Order: sequence, then C-alpha cells, then structure tokens
Amino acid sequence: MGSFRGHALPGSFFCFISLWWSMKYILKYACKKYKRTCYLGSKALFHRVEVLEGIIIVGMALSGMTWEQFVPGGPHLTLYDYEEGQWNQLLEWQHCTMYFFFGLFGVTNILCYTSCSLPVSLAKLMMSNAFFVEAFVFYNHTHGRDMLDVYVHQLLLLVIIVTGLITFIDFMRSNIILELLQPSFILLQGTWFWQIGFVLYPPSGGPAWEPTDHDNIMFVSICFCWHYMFSLIIVGLIYVFVTWLVKSKLKRACPSEVGLLKNAEREQELEEEM
Amino acid sequence: MGSFRGHALPGSFFCFISLWWSMKYILKYACKKYKRTCYLGSKALFHRVEVLEGIIIVGMALSGMTWEQFVPGGPHLTLYDYEEGQWNQLLEWQHCTMYFFFGLFGVTNILCYTSCSLPVSLAKLMMSNAFFVEAFVFYNHTHGRDMLDVYVHQLLLLVIIVTGLITFIDFMRSNIILELLQPSFILLQGTWFWQIGFVLYPPSGGPAWEPTDHDNIMFVSICFCWHYMFSLIIVGLIYVFVTWLVKSKLKRACPSEVGLLKNAEREQELEEEM
Amino acid sequence: MGSFRGHALPGSFFCFISLWWSMKYILKYACKKYKRTCYLGSKALFHRVEVLEGIIIVGMALSGMTWEQFVPGGPHLTLYDYEEGQWNQLLEWQHCTMYFFFGLFGVTNILCYTSCSLPVSLAKLMMSNAFFVEAFVFYNHTHGRDMLDVYVHQLLLLVIIVTGLITFIDFMRSNIILELLQPSFILLQGTWFWQIGFVLYPPSGGPAWEPTDHDNIMFVSICFCWHYMFSLIIVGLIYVFVTWLVKSKLKRACPSEVGLLKNAEREQELEEEM
Amino acid sequence: MGSFRGHALPGSFFCFISLWWSMKYILKYACKKYKRTCYLGSKALFHRVEVLEGIIIVGMALSGMTWEQFVPGGPHLTLYDYEEGQWNQLLEWQHCTMYFFFGLFGVTNILCYTSCSLPVSLAKLMMSNAFFVEAFVFYNHTHGRDMLDVYVHQLLLLVIIVTGLITFIDFMRSNIILELLQPSFILLQGTWFWQIGFVLYPPSGGPAWEPTDHDNIMFVSICFCWHYMFSLIIVGLIYVFVTWLVKSKLKRACPSEVGLLKNAEREQELEEEM
Repeated sequence: MGSFRGHALPGSFFCFISLWWSMKYILKYACKKYKRTCYLGSKALFHRVEVLEGIIIVGMALSGMTWEQFVPGGPHLTLYDYEEGQWNQLLEWQHCTMYFFFGLFGVTNILCYTSCSLPVSLAKLMMSNAFFVEAFVFYNHTHGRDMLDVYVHQLLLLVIIVTGLITFIDFMRSNIILELLQPSFILLQGTWFWQIGFVLYPPSGGPAWEPTDHDNIMFVSICFCWHYMFSLIIVGLIYVFVTWLVKSKLKRACPSEVGLLKNAEREQELEEEM
Repeated sequence: MGSFRGHALPGSFFCFISLWWSMKYILKYACKKYKRTCYLGSKALFHRVEVLEGIIIVGMALSGMTWEQFVPGGPHLTLYDYEEGQWNQLLEWQHCTMYFFFGLFGVTNILCYTSCSLPVSLAKLMMSNAFFVEAFVFYNHTHGRDMLDVYVHQLLLLVIIVTGLITFIDFMRSNIILELLQPSFILLQGTWFWQIGFVLYPPSGGPAWEPTDHDNIMFVSICFCWHYMFSLIIVGLIYVFVTWLVKSKLKRACPSEVGLLKNAEREQELEEEM
Repeated sequence: MGSFRGHALPGSFFCFISLWWSMKYILKYACKKYKRTCYLGSKALFHRVEVLEGIIIVGMALSGMTWEQFVPGGPHLTLYDYEEGQWNQLLEWQHCTMYFFFGLFGVTNILCYTSCSLPVSLAKLMMSNAFFVEAFVFYNHTHGRDMLDVYVHQLLLLVIIVTGLITFIDFMRSNIILELLQPSFILLQGTWFWQIGFVLYPPSGGPAWEPTDHDNIMFVSICFCWHYMFSLIIVGLIYVFVTWLVKSKLKRACPSEVGLLKNAEREQELEEEM
Repeated sequence: MGSFRGHALPGSFFCFISLWWSMKYILKYACKKYKRTCYLGSKALFHRVEVLEGIIIVGMALSGMTWEQFVPGGPHLTLYDYEEGQWNQLLEWQHCTMYFFFGLFGVTNILCYTSCSLPVSLAKLMMSNAFFVEAFVFYNHTHGRDMLDVYVHQLLLLVIIVTGLITFIDFMRSNIILELLQPSFILLQGTWFWQIGFVLYPPSGGPAWEPTDHDNIMFVSICFCWHYMFSLIIVGLIYVFVTWLVKSKLKRACPSEVGLLKNAEREQELEEEM
C-alpha cells in the first residue's frame, strides 16, 4: 500500500460502496414511507440485492487477498522466511487479514438473506466487526513513522472506529438516521484514503509534504473536517434526489397509497421513526 | 480569538442560546403536561419557532464566517500563501470550519421543520455533530501553549464533548431531563468562555495569571465546578419560573384540561416521562 | 482530610448511606413483588422517607461545608489571601465544592418528592451528577504525591466514576439489579476511604506504608478486589434478610395477594424485571 | 502461572466453557424458534442445566483456589511474611481473587435458578462482573516485563474487557447475537492463553520469542485476528450443526408446530429477534 495507487484503490472502493449504500438505504426508507408496493420497492427485490452485494463483497475480498499475496514481490503465502530467520512481509499479511473480515461480512450477508434460520441483523454486526478489526490492524500499523504520516493514519483510525460504533449502535437499535450516518463516514474514509495518497505520495511526482511542520498537521485537521462536510452534503443530496425520484417518478409506475393517508397519520409515522 | 473580546463574543452567544433553549424546552414540556391547547403551546407555533431559530443560527454562522475571513489581517479566502510558501492563518480557517457545522445544523433545523420527508430527530443529530466537530477542532487547537492556557481549553473541551454526548443520547432516547441538561452545559460553555477571557486576557489590562503556578490550575478546577453549579441553578430557576407561568398565568388565557385529570393519572404520566 | 480521621469520616458516611439505600431498594422491590399493600410498603411512606433522606443529606452537606470552612486553620470563607498574594487553602475549598453538589442532590430529592411538576428520575440524575463532580475534583487532587498515594486515590476515582456511570444508566433504564449495584459501589467507596486512612495515616501511629514499593501497589490492587467482594456479599446478605423479612414477618401484619398469584404469573413477572 | 502449563490450563478451561455455552445458547434459541415442546427443549431442563453449570463453576473455582494456595512453594494462606517483612507471593493471591469472582458468579447462577426471589438476569451481571475483575487484575499484572510479554497480555486484556462489555450490554438488552458473540470472545480468550504459552514458554523447550523485535509484535497482532477469525468460524459451525440437529433429528422425537406456522409469521418472528 505504500504508494499513491495503494491508497487510491481502497479509497475508490469505499467511496463507491458508500454511495451505493446511501442510495439503497434511502430508497428502502422512502419506499416504506410512501408505501410503494410495486416490484422496485418490494422486499423480495431488496433481499436479492443484498445477496448480490454479499457476492460482490466476497469477490472483492478474495481478489484483494490474491492480489496482496501474488503481486510480484509479495509473500506468496509464505509467512516465515526460514532461511533469513525472519517474518515475511507482514504488512501484506495484515492487509489480507483485513480483507478476510470484509469477506466474512459478505458471506454473512449472503447467508442472512438466503437462509431463514439466521437473524437478519447479524449482517450488521459482522459489518461493525469488520470495521473494528480494520481499526485494530491500523492501530498497529504506523510504528516508527513520521509525525504527519502517523497523524493522517490516526484520523483514518478515528473514522473507522466511529463507523464501527455507529454500525454497532444501529445493530442494537435500528434507526434510519444512524443508517445514513454510516455511509457518510464510509465516504469520509474513502475520500480520506485519497487525501492520504495526495499528502504522502503526491501523484504529481513532487516531494511529500514536510512531515515535521506543525502547520501541516493543523491544515490536515481542518481538511479532515472539510472532507466530512463534503460527505454529509453528498449524502444529503442523494437523499433529496432519491426522495424526489420515489415521490414523483415512481408515482406513475407503482400503485401508491400515499394519497389516502391523512396528514396526521403521516406526522405520527414521522415521529415513530425514533 | 486571541483576545478578551474573542472569547467574550462566543461566550455571550452560547449563554444567550442556552437560556433561550432551556425556556423553550420547559415551555414545551409544561404545555404538554398541563395539556394547554391554546395557540401559545401549540405544535404549529413551536414549528415556526424552530424554523426561525434555524434561520438565526444560519445567519450567525454566515456572519461569523464572513467576519473571520474579512476582518483586517484575516485570510481573505486565501488558504495558501504561495509567495511565502506557507499556510495562511489556519486558526481563522479553523474557526470558519466550526461556524460552518453550526450553520449546517441551522439548515437541517429549517429543513426538518418545513419538509415532512425528513425525520425531526435529524436536527438533534446535527447539533450533536456540530459539538463533536467543535471538540475535534479544539483538540487540535492548543499546541505548544502554556500549562494554564492548555488546561482551561481542556476543560472547555470536556464541556463540549459532554454536550455532544448528551445531545446524542437524547437523539437516541428523547427525555426531558437530558434535554434540559444540554442547555445547562451550553450555558457552562458560555460562562467558561468568559472565564477563559478573564484568565488569559484580563480586561482590566493587568497581566495574565501566572501560567505555571499549580495553585492556579487547582483554583481553575474549583472555579469550573462553580460555573457548573451556577448554570444548573439558573436552569432550575427558569424551570420554576416557566412552570409557574404556564400553571398560573396561562390558566386564564387558554382552555386547559388539567382540572379534569385525576391525581392518579397525573402521577402515572409523571412516571411515563422516563 | 490529610489525616486518618479525615478519611474515616467520609468512609463511615458512605458505608452508612449505602447500607441504608440497599435496604430501602430491596424493601421497595420485595414489597412490589409480593404485592404487600399495608402502610409499611406503601408509596406514601416511601415518598416521606425520600423527603427525610433529602433533608438529612442537605443537613450533612451544610454541616460538612461549615466544618471545612470554620475548623481552626480553615479558610474562613476567604478565597484569596491578598497579603501574601496567593490562594487560600484550595483543598478545603475543593471539599466544600464536593459537599455542595451532594447538597444539591439532597435539595433535588426533596423537590422531586414534594412537588409533582418535577420528574422523579431527576433525583437519580443529580446523584449521578454529584458522583461525577466528586470524580472530577478527585482527578485534580493528587498532583505531586507519592506513587502509592496516587494509586489508592486512582482506585477511589475508579469506584466513583463507576458509581456515577451505573447511576446514570439506571437513570436511563430503571432496573433493580443496577439499583443494587450502586449501593455496593458506594459501600466499596466507603470501605476504601477507611483503607486509604490505614495505608497513608496508620492509626496505630506507626509509619505509613513504603510509598515506592511495587509490592505494596500490587497488594493494594488485590485488597481493592477484596473490598469489592466484601461489599457484594454484604448487599447480598441484606437482600436475603429483607426478602425473608417481607415474606415471613410481614405476612401477619399486612394483607397480601401473594397466595393468589399463580406460579406462572410470578415467573412472568420475574422475566419482566428486565 | 509463569509456565506453559499455567497458561494452557485456563486456556483449555475457557475453550471448553465457550464451546459448551455456544451450544447451549443456540439450542435454546433454536428450540424456542421452532417451538419444540418436548423435554429436551423445555424450560425445566435448561434450569437444571444452569444449576449444574453453577455447581461445576463453583467446584472449579474452589479447586483452583486450593491449588494456587497449596501447590508446593505456594503461599499456604499466609499473606504477609513477618520474618522477611514482605508480602508473600502476591501473584498467587491475585489468581485466587480472580477465581473467587468466577466462584461468586457460579453461586449466583445456582441461586438465580433455584430461588424465585432473584431476577434471572443477575447471573449475567455477575458474569460480566467476573470478567471486569479479571481485567482489572490483569491490568496490574505485567509491571516491569518485556515488550512482547506486555503486548500479548494487553491483547488478552482487550478480549476480557470486550467480553465483559458484551455481557453487560446483553444483560441490559437480551439479544441472541450478542449472547453468541460472548462465547466467541471467551473462545478467543482460551486460544489466546494457549498462544501466550507458545510465545513465552515454548513447550518444545526452545528459547522464547525475541521480546524486543517489532516484527514479532506485528505478527502477534495479525495472529490475534486469526484467532478471532477462527473462534467466529467455530461458533458459526456450531450454529449450523445445532440448528440442523434441532430441525431434522428432533423432528421425530418431539412434537413441533413448525409446520403449522405460515411463512409470513416466521419472517415476522425473525425480525422481532431484535
């Protein structure tokens, strides 16, 4: 991962998945709220989507692990170099471990939505779990590096822990707002991976930022807030877009009972969200 | 902010908003409890007040950001000074970022109470969010200062984090007592800003307090408790006043069903608050 | 407080109050469970007891504050010694502040059970509050002392924080077991105050324990567990005693519906406790 | 405990108990879900099992304490060596204290399921309590050791605290998934005890791992994730096995209403798990 591309790849992945999840959650919520009963908002479709998602995540985790192992200069599945008497490329093994837990989450997702003997919320717990393991590995990742390098990774750690916590709280008490906060933080994680790439391995080929300048640290902390701001706004815009779509476009395609609900009922519904 | 006025201004703002919020929360609670149904305690009025509040907060955030940027000697929207090859007044940019998140809370407040496709509790989450971002920025704010300076800002950080946590818990489980605890802590934050001004930049023009004396640290920690004590008592007095107002003054103006409720029912109600 | 008696006094107080509270909580619970409806288990009696408790706590807080201020060599209400240009006995002022918050809890207790416009659970929040403030003050209390001295106070801090947390969780979700855990920790706090007295100011007049010996630290940590063990067992014995009392002795005095309840119902009740 | 066997013994114990608990929890859950009403899934049987478990745990705690005290070279119940003027083998006393709290949990388990005047959830609290005390003792256990030694015990501490927290959350809000997460972490604790044995006291008789090599630390952190992965998979396999057993094998032996439930009902049930 010690390159611009090594940070841009996971960054893009997290950005993509967070955009997709925020769309899915909002669509689910809006369909439920406006009681759309056509195929597009049906439970069966959402179940199939979840299974598909699980398969994609497992696929990505597998390919990620393969890539980490068999890239030229990778560990090629040897953990201990007996000739030199030392461990063999532990950083790559750390990445494999992280991928594995995301893969486990994917497998759980598939199982939860195909077998009826598993509680659905288990998938959420495994997602929260994957983030906590990622946080644990990152915590043991930056030994002996420069101040700036450590700091940008600490901020990443902060995002990952908060994502794990929010997913765990959402697992305990399902809540649409927490559900949306989670893709916001995953988006923040994604864009922050990109930012780390730009800070430590500038793609322009110029030198990395001065690692011991306190002004850089300070700017990075502001920049982190801006990324967060940006991710909140993006998720907000998706919310507006999807709600508008469900409200206006799907009206023609699907039968809806929204007209039949009285105002009072809708308000009550609104409050019951909590 | 490095002046008495720079601390007195946000202090006054937080004091004002906390007094207003504690009045609003208690009025809402008392009206609901004594089942006043006239215009003053109606839902429609409270919704309009929330929207107005949102507009005021957005206005204050915008003017705060403008002021930070265009004050003589401010950054004037230039982030990086290419001539000198260094960042341009990052402290002011930090303050702008804080203001932005309070502005975002204001915008959410307006949207939550005007559009019916947003859950109302979102506003609370964004408030908690604004406090957490403020805490994050303050945490990266006091690098390389004196012991006393760092300590008074750490205490501020403590208040801000507790406020954020209480607002978050209140977001998860709405509860009148937590709702009132929140303006108490905002009031504490406000008066503590004033205190910081008096400690670090005495308005009398005298020298600042000796920054390395441990006795000063110790007194400051006691003083912090006294501020807290003071803010709890103020909110308590507002509670007494507003409840008395609703009970006695509004009796003539509004039809009430309080006389019709039996004692037992009221007690039960009391317990259901939890 | 820097003496054996200074630690034995608050220790005795906390021991006494915890024994009393555990009896009260268990009596309340047992009366409710076995549906005793005579005067001894009635709501009215418990309300009067709470008010009395509040008065006692306020009285103790006031006398504590007076004593700290007007003891020979005390601060006599002067905070700053203008002649010597330094703060006047801040340790005593710290203790006064702690007493004040316990007094505030007492006042709230009285108000909650006399006025019906206050939610009853407010008293619990103020209790939790008093413990958190005590923890905050203790945290700023042990600057520049010996290792052993700091360590025994850190353990005290741990108890106080846990007590505050448990009371806060109990405030959020009332639960008999948490309610009983709270007097256990208060008892632990009480006996630990005594232990601190014995460790730092041996009443036998011998020298204090060697403050830099790591074995002492280690023994103190074991001893702390034993105190906890002891307090759990004491509360358990009180539970057995009070339940037996309610079941057997009060049977003659009060009419009870316990015989009328079917076994199944009682079991269900048992599970609803959660 | 300073030997391979000293770590392998508690490790085996925790592995065994976690396997047993995961089987019990899943069996309970599956029986409830598929509404098996025969003796094997009845409440009475589970109560008897709990009492038996309690007795076993108390027995193990007692034998553990006896063994720690009366092993050749053990403290033989003398706490202070008056001749040499120093504490007598505090490490063994620490272990006794840990055993005691597990014994207390066993006693509570017995009492909760035999007496009907105790809330059943008390047993869970005492279990969480036993883990927290274990964590507290371990925290004060590794003073002045090598980096690797401290690190492997810190990881153990992490598992123990997480187990305690999960048990506490499960005590507050009973939930099958959290219930299963708990034996996963106990299994992790068990296998990690074994791992510590292999790292610090290799049974092959070779030298211990180099304690100051950062690569070892890094591998240990990866290895920890692998143990976790392994424990999750084991619990998952037990889940599959027990569910399959209840579904297919018990069908002949016990009357079941599973065939009578409509699909929709089962789905609803699934969602109510949360």
